[in-house]
Amino acid sequence: MTHRVTSMLDTYPKDIEWVDKQKLAECIEACFECAQICTACADACLAEDMIAELTTCIRKNTDCADICVTTGSILSRQTGNNVEVIRAVVEACRVACKSCADECAQHADHHDHCRVCAEACRRCEQACADLLSSIG
Amino acid sequence: MTHRVTSMLDTYPKDIEWVDKQKLAECIEACFECAQICTACADACLAEDMIAELTTCIRKNTDCADICVTTGSILSRQTGNNVEVIRAVVEACRVACKSCADECAQHADHHDHCRVCAEACRRCEQACADLLSSIG
Amino acid sequence: MTHRVTSMLDTYPKDIEWVDKQKLAECIEACFECAQICTACADACLAEDMIAELTTCIRKNTDCADICVTTGSILSRQTGNNVEVIRAVVEACRVACKSCADECAQHADHHDHCRVCAEACRRCEQACADLLSSIG
Amino acid sequence: MTHRVTSMLDTYPKDIEWVDKQKLAECIEACFECAQICTACADACLAEDMIAELTTCIRKNTDCADICVTTGSILSRQTGNNVEVIRAVVEACRVACKSCADECAQHADHHDHCRVCAEACRRCEQACADLLSSIG
Repeated sequence: MTHRVTSMLDTYPKDIEWVDKQKLAECIEACFECAQICTACADACLAEDMIAELTTCIRKNTDCADICVTTGSILSRQTGNNVEVIRAVVEACRVACKSCADECAQHADHHDHCRVCAEACRRCEQACADLLSSIG
Repeated sequence: MTHRVTSMLDTYPKDIEWVDKQKLAECIEACFECAQICTACADACLAEDMIAELTTCIRKNTDCADICVTTGSILSRQTGNNVEVIRAVVEACRVACKSCADECAQHADHHDHCRVCAEACRRCEQACADLLSSIG
Repeated sequence: MTHRVTSMLDTYPKDIEWVDKQKLAECIEACFECAQICTACADACLAEDMIAELTTCIRKNTDCADICVTTGSILSRQTGNNVEVIRAVVEACRVACKSCADECAQHADHHDHCRVCAEACRRCEQACADLLSSIG
Repeated sequence: MTHRVTSMLDTYPKDIEWVDKQKLAECIEACFECAQICTACADACLAEDMIAELTTCIRKNTDCADICVTTGSILSRQTGNNVEVIRAVVEACRVACKSCADECAQHADHHDHCRVCAEACRRCEQACADLLSSIG
C-alpha cells in the first residue's frame, strides 16, 4: 500500500511543504495497517477460551483501531493548514499505539494475534514519533 | 441524547470511578453532536457559490468530525484502564474543535451553517476541557 | 439532538428535494444514538462475568456501531446526487440494526445494557425502514 | 498489506469456514486502500481551481471512504455469525465504489488523483463482487 499512498500524494495539485512526504506516506500506511490488525486482534481475543483475561486487550485494541483510522484519514488531507490539529492527533495515536503494544506484548507468547498486533502497534508508534519529530 | 447516554452509563455492570459521570455523558453527547454538525457543515460549504474561499473550513470540519466520532466512541468504553490514551485523545479533540470553531466563526455572518457549527464546536471544546480538568 | 440535526438541515444553501426532511433528521439522529449505545453495549458485555456467552452480541454491537456512524454521516450530506448509494447503505444499516436488536433482545432480561441497546436498534431499524419507503 | 491481512487471518484461533480466506483478505485490503485513496482524492479536488465542477466527486469520494472503512473493519471480524449483515454491507460498498469510480472516471483525463482513485474504486468494486459471489 505504501507505494499507492505515495502515488496518491504525488497527484496532489499543489506543493506539500509542511512535511517530509516519505515520512508522511509511511505514517499513513502504518495507521491503516495498525487499524486493520487491531480490529482483527480484538475479534480474535473474543474467540479465545481465556477471554476473561483479555478484556483490557480488547479495549485497547478497539480504541487504537479507532484513533489509527482517524489519524490515517487526517494525514491523507493536505488542503488548508491544520498542523496544530495534526500534531495533537498524531501524538494521541502514538500514545494509543504504545499502550496497545505494551498490552499485546504481554500476551504475545500465548496468542499469535497479539504478537502480530504488538509488532504493528510498535511500527505505528514509531512512524508517529518520526513524523512528529520531523514536523517540529 | 444526553439522557440516553446517561441511561446507558447507568447500566454498566461495574462502578465507573475514573471520572465524573455527568461530565463524561456531556462530553460524549457533545462529541457525537459536533461530528454530525461538522459533517453537515463541510457538505453545506460545498454547495456555496463562494466554495473556493471555504476549502480550509471544509478541511477543518472534516478533520474535526473524524476526531469527534473517535473521541465519543472511546469515551463510551469503560472496560480496562485506558486513561492515558483518553487524555491524549480528548486533548486532540479539544484542539480540533477549537481550530474548527475559530475557522467557522470567521464565516458565521455569511453562512448559517458555519454559525451553528462554530457553536457546536465551542460546546465540544468546552466539554473536552471540562472533562480533562476533572480527570487531572 | 434531533432539534439540532433539523436546524442544521435548515441551513443547507439549496433545496433538499430527494427526501422528507423530518424523516431524514429522525434517521440521522437514530443512527448516531444507536452507534453510541451499541459501542457502550459491546463494552458493557466485556465487563460481565458471563462474557463467554456474549461474544456474538459484542460482534453484532460493534458491526452495528460502525455501519450506524457511516450511515448517519452519509445522510448528513446533501451535495451531489448519491441516492443509489444512500439506498444501499441505509438498507445495510437496517439489516445490521435488526440483527443486533434480535441478539440483544435475547439478553435483555439479564442485562440492562442489552435491553436499552435492543430498543435503540429497533428505533434505528424503523427509522431506516421509514426513510427507505419514503425515498422509493 | 495483503500479506499482513492474511497473516492476521491465520492467527484467528478457530476455523474460518464461511468464506474463501484469500478473497476475504483481498477485499479487506481493497477496502482500506480505497478508503485512503478516496479521502485523498476528495482533498485533492478541494485544491483544484475548477473545484466548483468537482463537488459531486468530493461527495462520492467521502461517502465511499466512509463505507469502505466500515466494510474493511466488519470483514476483519470472524467471531459470531453475522453473514447477513456482511452481505448487505459489502453490497453497499460495491455500489458506493461503482458510483465513485464512474464519477472519477469522468475527470481522469484532467486530474491524476481522479484517475488513480477510479482505479482503486474499480478494484474494490470487483473485490466486493467476488466476495459476494463466493459467499452466495
